[in-house]
Amino acid sequence: MCNACITNAVKKHMISRRDMFRSAVALGAASVAAGIVTARPALAAAHGTVVDLTHTFTPEFPTFDGVPGLTMEQTVKFDESGYQLFRLTVDEHSGTHIDAPLHFTTDGTSVDELPVENLVCPLCVIDIEARAQEEVNTMVSTEDIETWISANGDIPEGACVAMHSGWADKVGDASYRNDADGNFTFPGFSKEATDMLMEMGVAAIGVDTLSLDPGNSADFAVHYSWLPSGRYGIENLAGLRNVPAAGATVFVGAPKHGGGTGGPARVLAVT
Amino acid sequence: MCNACITNAVKKHMISRRDMFRSAVALGAASVAAGIVTARPALAAAHGTVVDLTHTFTPEFPTFDGVPGLTMEQTVKFDESGYQLFRLTVDEHSGTHIDAPLHFTTDGTSVDELPVENLVCPLCVIDIEARAQEEVNTMVSTEDIETWISANGDIPEGACVAMHSGWADKVGDASYRNDADGNFTFPGFSKEATDMLMEMGVAAIGVDTLSLDPGNSADFAVHYSWLPSGRYGIENLAGLRNVPAAGATVFVGAPKHGGGTGGPARVLAVT
Ligand SMILES: [Zn+2]
Ligand SMILES: [Zn+2]
Repeated sequence: MCNACITNAVKKHMISRRDMFRSAVALGAASVAAGIVTARPALAAAHGTVVDLTHTFTPEFPTFDGVPGLTMEQTVKFDESGYQLFRLTVDEHSGTHIDAPLHFTTDGTSVDELPVENLVCPLCVIDIEARAQEEVNTMVSTEDIETWISANGDIPEGACVAMHSGWADKVGDASYRNDADGNFTFPGFSKEATDMLMEMGVAAIGVDTLSLDPGNSADFAVHYSWLPSGRYGIENLAGLRNVPAAGATVFVGAPKHGGGTGGPARVLAVT
Repeated sequence: MCNACITNAVKKHMISRRDMFRSAVALGAASVAAGIVTARPALAAAHGTVVDLTHTFTPEFPTFDGVPGLTMEQTVKFDESGYQLFRLTVDEHSGTHIDAPLHFTTDGTSVDELPVENLVCPLCVIDIEARAQEEVNTMVSTEDIETWISANGDIPEGACVAMHSGWADKVGDASYRNDADGNFTFPGFSKEATDMLMEMGVAAIGVDTLSLDPGNSADFAVHYSWLPSGRYGIENLAGLRNVPAAGATVFVGAPKHGGGTGGPARVLAVT
């Protein structure tokens, strides 16, 4: 932790306090511009905007192995019982979901054991969308990280670093997963990049694609190094277009089933 | 939203800013008391402490209907494939979980449709533990709410109001669910109390027991009024002993399967 980081953290707080005062003043004057100050000013003042980074999970949601990741069976019906509910069958690694260390180890941390302080993180978003449009298997590189730092300052310890490739927009289309020949095609992280993030004390990496490694990966080098290091990943993120490159806080609602290797998660950012 | 609430919100921010400065100063002087300032000062400064309000979800976790709420089948094995994962079968209303309006309506909001701004809320904890030890089916009353307000100030719009009955500690014991005669016995909310919270613009209620209504409820009056009003509930909360009565923010990691009536959620508080 450098002094510059502390200074940045202090500045960030001062700014949010100023925004909050501004809201309070606007409310006091009862000059509330529609859409600017919401019906819930206390929450808005305290938290800013909540952005959903989670896709809606359905049986049609694309999966790595091509098998539906979710089925829903209605086991209690409203007209019979006065209430209703479903039984779900869920493959752990489907939808917007966590990869826990135990997914790629036999003795690593399971999803329920992830330290809670690593589930609330400063969010850093690395935007490679322009390049990904030309190069479908492109990777976040060490140069991308250096570019991000030049523009935004150091990556905080305990951060979640997310790749924004624009892939979330393709989720209803076959191109989310593969090309016309059936080859996996989507961006991911390079091992060199995640090794660098590991040294910076980053807690988690996230991607808006089906895998931490790019579609054409032969060796799953990121899965086999990042996860065994005790860190976790998030796959199939949505909404990264709606958060800033730096300054948001991400809440990772990892599931907590005992001994799980991962599972569908609710991921929200507060800007 | 009253002016007093705005003043309180402003005060709360000033306090947290002051705490943050204190942390920064302590770090600058490099006089870091072990356990006070963690290895992740930027996060600690920005967020304080993260408290898990979620039970670990296992096949043994007590359920309302007595049927296991979770089964786990290992569908990919590490020694065969070099990685591993499970297929889960999950009853929506088991573990620490959400009740969406659709659970007690045919056309209400489903769990994936809950507005995200209602998933990050000021947390108000109403402690009825002392009474619950004597009266196993006791209810949070309007008087309990008034007592809370006298001690802590107004309940903010958009808050999540949680009952702390001490039941979370019993989760491994039959008394979490019923008495020796098999009658349901656990505390819950009274309809009068939740009607009052509705008028205050509360977004969600939570309980550390199996149901929003107490164990001896004949009519599920809270389920049939609170949920159809478009609001949601959280059942089987844990860890409420570790958060203050007022001032924490709760992050409700509701699942996002399309058309669901609820489901296991990761619930975290930041104090
Ligand atoms: Zn996965
Ligand atoms: Zn329920």
